[in-house]
Amino acid sequence: MMRLAEIGATARGGVCRLALTDLDRVARDQFLSWVRELGCEISIDTIGNIVARRPGADPARLPVMTGSHLDTQPTGGKFDGVYGVMAGLEVMRTLNDKGIRTAAPLELVVWTNEEGTRFSPIMMGSGVFTGQLSLDDMLKKQDRDGVSVQSALAAIGYDGKRNPGHPVGAYFEAHIEQGPILENEGISIGVVTGAMGQRWYDIEVIGLESHAGTTPMDSRRDALLAASRLTVRVNEIALEKGGNTRSTVGYMDVHPNSRNSIPGRVHLTVEFRGPEENMLAAMEQELNQACDRYSEPGKLDFSIRRVADIKPQPFFPPLVDVVRNAAQELSYTHMEILSGAGHDAVYMAKAGPAAMIFVPCKDGLSHNELEDAKKEDLEAGTNVLLRSMLCAAEMLE
Amino acid sequence: MMRLAEIGATARGGVCRLALTDLDRVARDQFLSWVRELGCEISIDTIGNIVARRPGADPARLPVMTGSHLDTQPTGGKFDGVYGVMAGLEVMRTLNDKGIRTAAPLELVVWTNEEGTRFSPIMMGSGVFTGQLSLDDMLKKQDRDGVSVQSALAAIGYDGKRNPGHPVGAYFEAHIEQGPILENEGISIGVVTGAMGQRWYDIEVIGLESHAGTTPMDSRRDALLAASRLTVRVNEIALEKGGNTRSTVGYMDVHPNSRNSIPGRVHLTVEFRGPEENMLAAMEQELNQACDRYSEPGKLDFSIRRVADIKPQPFFPPLVDVVRNAAQELSYTHMEILSGAGHDAVYMAKAGPAAMIFVPCKDGLSHNELEDAKKEDLEAGTNVLLRSMLCAAEMLE
Repeated sequence: MMRLAEIGATARGGVCRLALTDLDRVARDQFLSWVRELGCEISIDTIGNIVARRPGADPARLPVMTGSHLDTQPTGGKFDGVYGVMAGLEVMRTLNDKGIRTAAPLELVVWTNEEGTRFSPIMMGSGVFTGQLSLDDMLKKQDRDGVSVQSALAAIGYDGKRNPGHPVGAYFEAHIEQGPILENEGISIGVVTGAMGQRWYDIEVIGLESHAGTTPMDSRRDALLAASRLTVRVNEIALEKGGNTRSTVGYMDVHPNSRNSIPGRVHLTVEFRGPEENMLAAMEQELNQACDRYSEPGKLDFSIRRVADIKPQPFFPPLVDVVRNAAQELSYTHMEILSGAGHDAVYMAKAGPAAMIFVPCKDGLSHNELEDAKKEDLEAGTNVLLRSMLCAAEMLE
Repeated sequence: MMRLAEIGATARGGVCRLALTDLDRVARDQFLSWVRELGCEISIDTIGNIVARRPGADPARLPVMTGSHLDTQPTGGKFDGVYGVMAGLEVMRTLNDKGIRTAAPLELVVWTNEEGTRFSPIMMGSGVFTGQLSLDDMLKKQDRDGVSVQSALAAIGYDGKRNPGHPVGAYFEAHIEQGPILENEGISIGVVTGAMGQRWYDIEVIGLESHAGTTPMDSRRDALLAASRLTVRVNEIALEKGGNTRSTVGYMDVHPNSRNSIPGRVHLTVEFRGPEENMLAAMEQELNQACDRYSEPGKLDFSIRRVADIKPQPFFPPLVDVVRNAAQELSYTHMEILSGAGHDAVYMAKAGPAAMIFVPCKDGLSHNELEDAKKEDLEAGTNVLLRSMLCAAEMLE
């Protein structure tokens, strides 16, 4: 991990290695040299996903796959994504060192463009692999400079020939938690039971721009005041709902944004996350009611547009059990946890059995140059991954 | 007024005529040709203020002055400032038409750069005239292109020779209200008793930027949530205080301002206005208490900086009475009103007797291309100005 962290290292100790840049190529090349040393068969598909295969003894078995991504946020850290790839590499190295064969083949995957920073959307490689995203559409996506995914892949020599997607018997992904729960609880292994659903909204509040000095309080149509009331209410909605739901106003844009003007127009975003669809539906209802209430009919207009609706995605219960049992047998402290963020494993769970292993990260920080994790936790997660893969692939000797 | 509105007319029916631009020169030239027709003596001072003097019969009397400004906001209207200048011109024309002499001389002034849009600060000409602002400092002020006030004055030929400032016996300024009170009350004349005090604050809220999906509600340090609570509270402060106080959050800047990030930092402005200093002091205390409360010690930091402290400025009561009596004698509906905005008359009130006359404007709109006012109200205000000036200057025949 520390070798990869040098590729795109930032002054503040983080990593900036955007998808399909030259730095991404250097990291991919380094990965290839490592898996070649292990004797893996390598294939690259047309969206640039790299799969390194360690053959199994039984040609009838579906592969047991693990992996994650090597691209980072612009001010990213050393662990997000990279940990899952390197944990998988360590699993393969350990099996080679010990001379262990498995019945099923093992595959280690590097997904293209998980972060979605240079090219939108996020989780592009696993989305195409699982048929959730269209290959043709994704190849045409452009960055801000008008460079397409297709030409960026060609430019770094990772425009592979293989058609994306093949059956997978079990997919495991190790990842830092990116939140503070495990650290706060003092627990090493998060047994991830699924990923939360998400609903995203764009909201516009229209009032009337007027002079802050000359407009009496009772004549105002203050869009920022209404937006602030809504922000306070949005926070309450998740607190009242409980059950691990989350609600956030992350973006607010005020017009004309001048000290002496009562704001006439505010754009804001609202985001709800939760483990169950009915919770999200109830939160949406609360949001609509709040907008009605704060519009004070005739004074302010709220327009609400839902811009994303991602269903909660449970992981495959038997595989979740495999992870839990592995942690148990290795005597690591562990707890069930839900993923609040998206991961390649979420797309993989739509196409076949999948599960995830979380390890704590310092202060819950991620997408941040200060991202950090303890060696012993990273080792614990890797041992759980090893044991889980051996269980699914069946260890022969 | 409609002739002046052509100079810098905008497509939406407003006016853009920034201080000391070529358009300002055209408007000033037009003004000069009008006052020359009336036989006025013209002087221009070193900050560009134009004074047109109609001599009085008694050389011992101090002048009775009126006027306002010809510069506008970038998306300004036809009435803000221009009305006060043209009402004064109409007063002089009427006296000439009727052959009326006054004991005191009358002066009609066009103040330089009231709006403060191209060159900061606002009310530059009257500030220098009354010794509240330094001439040398003001001449050095630059616009965004690095052009100084001094060179802009020279470029349009309004770098006069006279030293700014001379004693004035009484100063009256007619102006649109720029707020909705008179219109809502159905009243033609606002007898302005003074200008509100103002306190401005810059506030920074520091929390912790983190992932909106992975950070549980109870682990958040959400700077936008705290800023929203403060915005709601700021609004309550003026409502609770009553007595014509006003409180506004007009500006809010959110960092990183991303849908999926809990905001770690917010800048906002708070502005209080009120008729009495003790009210403003009490409001400031409430603001400090609110910041303490919403900081939830250890979670968020608020830094509060007071960036302006403008004392309430009463107008000269005998002159306010003159305005009230004039409206009364002319049988116009009238009411006392406080100015929530700054005006050149506020600086003039620091150096000598001053008062203002407000007339209603449509929907209370100002600093807006849709600014509008009724002919009959503009006429009423001009008649009150005429009568007030005659009272102060003593009509001789």
